[in-house]
Amino acid sequence: MRGIISRYRDLMPPEIQAISDDKIVTLGEGGTPLIRAKNLEEYLRTQNPKFAAQVWLKDEGVNPTKSFKDRGMTGAVSYEKSIGRAAVACASTGNTYGSAAAYAKKAGMKCFGLVPEGKVTPGKIFLASMYGATTIEIRGNFDAAFALVKQLKDVGVVNNIHPYRLCGQATAAFEICDKLKRFKRVPSYHFLPVGNAGNITAYWMGYTLYNKMGQIPFAPAMMGCQAEGAAAMVLGRDIENPETEASAIRIGKPARREEATRARIESGGRFYSVTDDEIKEARKLLVETEDVFCELASATSVATVIKLNRFGRLDFWKMVTVVCTLTGSGWKDLDTAFAQFIPQKSIVIEPKLDDVMDVIRSK
Amino acid sequence: MRGIISRYRDLMPPEIQAISDDKIVTLGEGGTPLIRAKNLEEYLRTQNPKFAAQVWLKDEGVNPTKSFKDRGMTGAVSYEKSIGRAAVACASTGNTYGSAAAYAKKAGMKCFGLVPEGKVTPGKIFLASMYGATTIEIRGNFDAAFALVKQLKDVGVVNNIHPYRLCGQATAAFEICDKLKRFKRVPSYHFLPVGNAGNITAYWMGYTLYNKMGQIPFAPAMMGCQAEGAAAMVLGRDIENPETEASAIRIGKPARREEATRARIESGGRFYSVTDDEIKEARKLLVETEDVFCELASATSVATVIKLNRFGRLDFWKMVTVVCTLTGSGWKDLDTAFAQFIPQKSIVIEPKLDDVMDVIRSK
Repeated sequence: MRGIISRYRDLMPPEIQAISDDKIVTLGEGGTPLIRAKNLEEYLRTQNPKFAAQVWLKDEGVNPTKSFKDRGMTGAVSYEKSIGRAAVACASTGNTYGSAAAYAKKAGMKCFGLVPEGKVTPGKIFLASMYGATTIEIRGNFDAAFALVKQLKDVGVVNNIHPYRLCGQATAAFEICDKLKRFKRVPSYHFLPVGNAGNITAYWMGYTLYNKMGQIPFAPAMMGCQAEGAAAMVLGRDIENPETEASAIRIGKPARREEATRARIESGGRFYSVTDDEIKEARKLLVETEDVFCELASATSVATVIKLNRFGRLDFWKMVTVVCTLTGSGWKDLDTAFAQFIPQKSIVIEPKLDDVMDVIRSK
Repeated sequence: MRGIISRYRDLMPPEIQAISDDKIVTLGEGGTPLIRAKNLEEYLRTQNPKFAAQVWLKDEGVNPTKSFKDRGMTGAVSYEKSIGRAAVACASTGNTYGSAAAYAKKAGMKCFGLVPEGKVTPGKIFLASMYGATTIEIRGNFDAAFALVKQLKDVGVVNNIHPYRLCGQATAAFEICDKLKRFKRVPSYHFLPVGNAGNITAYWMGYTLYNKMGQIPFAPAMMGCQAEGAAAMVLGRDIENPETEASAIRIGKPARREEATRARIESGGRFYSVTDDEIKEARKLLVETEDVFCELASATSVATVIKLNRFGRLDFWKMVTVVCTLTGSGWKDLDTAFAQFIPQKSIVIEPKLDDVMDVIRSK
């Protein structure tokens, strides 16, 4: 199976390059679709007639454990395995844990997940547990779990503070540039959800490297998108009790605050926040316009584009190429989806043709 | 977006070729992974030391609506759209309906799903309902719903009796041959779950066409795998009340019985049945050995390989290439998964380092 390290081996740090392909722990992550969202563009035009940009969605929900975390996990777990560790651990709102569990299992290592008690969607816990990991629920929030995990000894901590996680996540930026090149485009703005601020840091690493190598003439402005109740980067200070239904970004103390701030400044980008209602609205719109079903946190990026466009706060003229990362699949977060997309009441009938035709004609 | 029709246009029937690429309704289906299952092979060797074959898994659960149905739906819905229909309908155990709903939405058409009352997993109904389809629950089983849908007028019936569904599903056979060619292999046996018997018919269409074109020197033996309580092909007669937890193949009257029988005879294959327990065991093994999480019905193919191997009923010598199709993703069928993979009880602790270390040391 070929994963992102085998595909971008030359661009990996020497410590990862030192691990041969057959020792790399991979589940075939990466190579995810970058979808031109023409219907969404049309919607944005109805909201603001000046809108003329291209919008592309990077759907990371199709990775093996259905989130972008797999890109980083292949490097982190391969490294921990190579130095002889028997176990990995992480603090998590769910996606990191599921990914760590799957890669640890593949590597024949134990996995421990420190999660905020009762605050992780059951599907995510279930995934990790299916892969044989041990769940430790902490009486506290993600930040408390993260503070703890950093102090662990003798186990590989595979959160985004891990030295070889971000180099993997950076490959998403390479893939985006590689694909857009075929359409003679370069990303102008990259919108992505920001929780612990690792992914924005990774993308920026990727873009600046590609820029230095001459693969892209300029790097995009990094637009970090947060939920209003957990907008630690927007506010410029930590938040003790972050609150949002978008559980994957319910983080009050971003571990990569410094690097993310640097990414924002160097790229000429900005941090924005949107409300939970705006996030839900954007997720619904993605299903309706592009048939893409993402988890709640993922829709934060598109919600921000909608907001900026509606109020004319960014100039989306025709040479602008907007990329939005959808960080995880809607299937991992069915609870919020069930609550949001209230299923139409089924019509129950006897197996009679006339009754069926009555229903069809009534619609 | 590029789907299977654009990729295999030359091999499609003239009526589909007549529809131009921009009128094809696609969600980017196909191009699914074919995974060499080395750990599973090792397991099979522990069960029977004579086992020396290669096993490849075709993971259809990564299609846009997470099942193989999408391959057929692109052709069926494109055709119905091209002749000006406003609505499509299907009888379904869930996967067909979810796929029909998504493609109909993309095409701007209405969709009606006739499903057996209370017998379809909630995730599948939810998916269709999210895409705006109308669910009609029939007081009866799948076969009753199917008998009804065949009589509908003025709506496109997109079940596998549709003339342009199987040509799309046949592309999975093309993809398998194309990929195995790179490894200088040709499928010897193809195991796949059989419910309504459309997919086995489609694969056989694909293999014989590729064989005629000289792409493969011979076509594989088609091995149809059924659940014991719904083994209409094995028994050679219809079953009034099919029973199995594998809801996707809980079908007693296979619509494509005749074609499937021909496929079996022409290919030198056979139909087999396995118990629900064997199916569950195989699904668990797939997670444990290959990190693949499929729906219950999908595991029927692997369960059959395990059974035949254990009892030495098929000669899996080293030149044999076994392909198993996994028809749908485990994420569509979380209920049976929750019931099967009983999550380990979480350990709940205060955020104290010593307590965490105690847990880790105890494992």
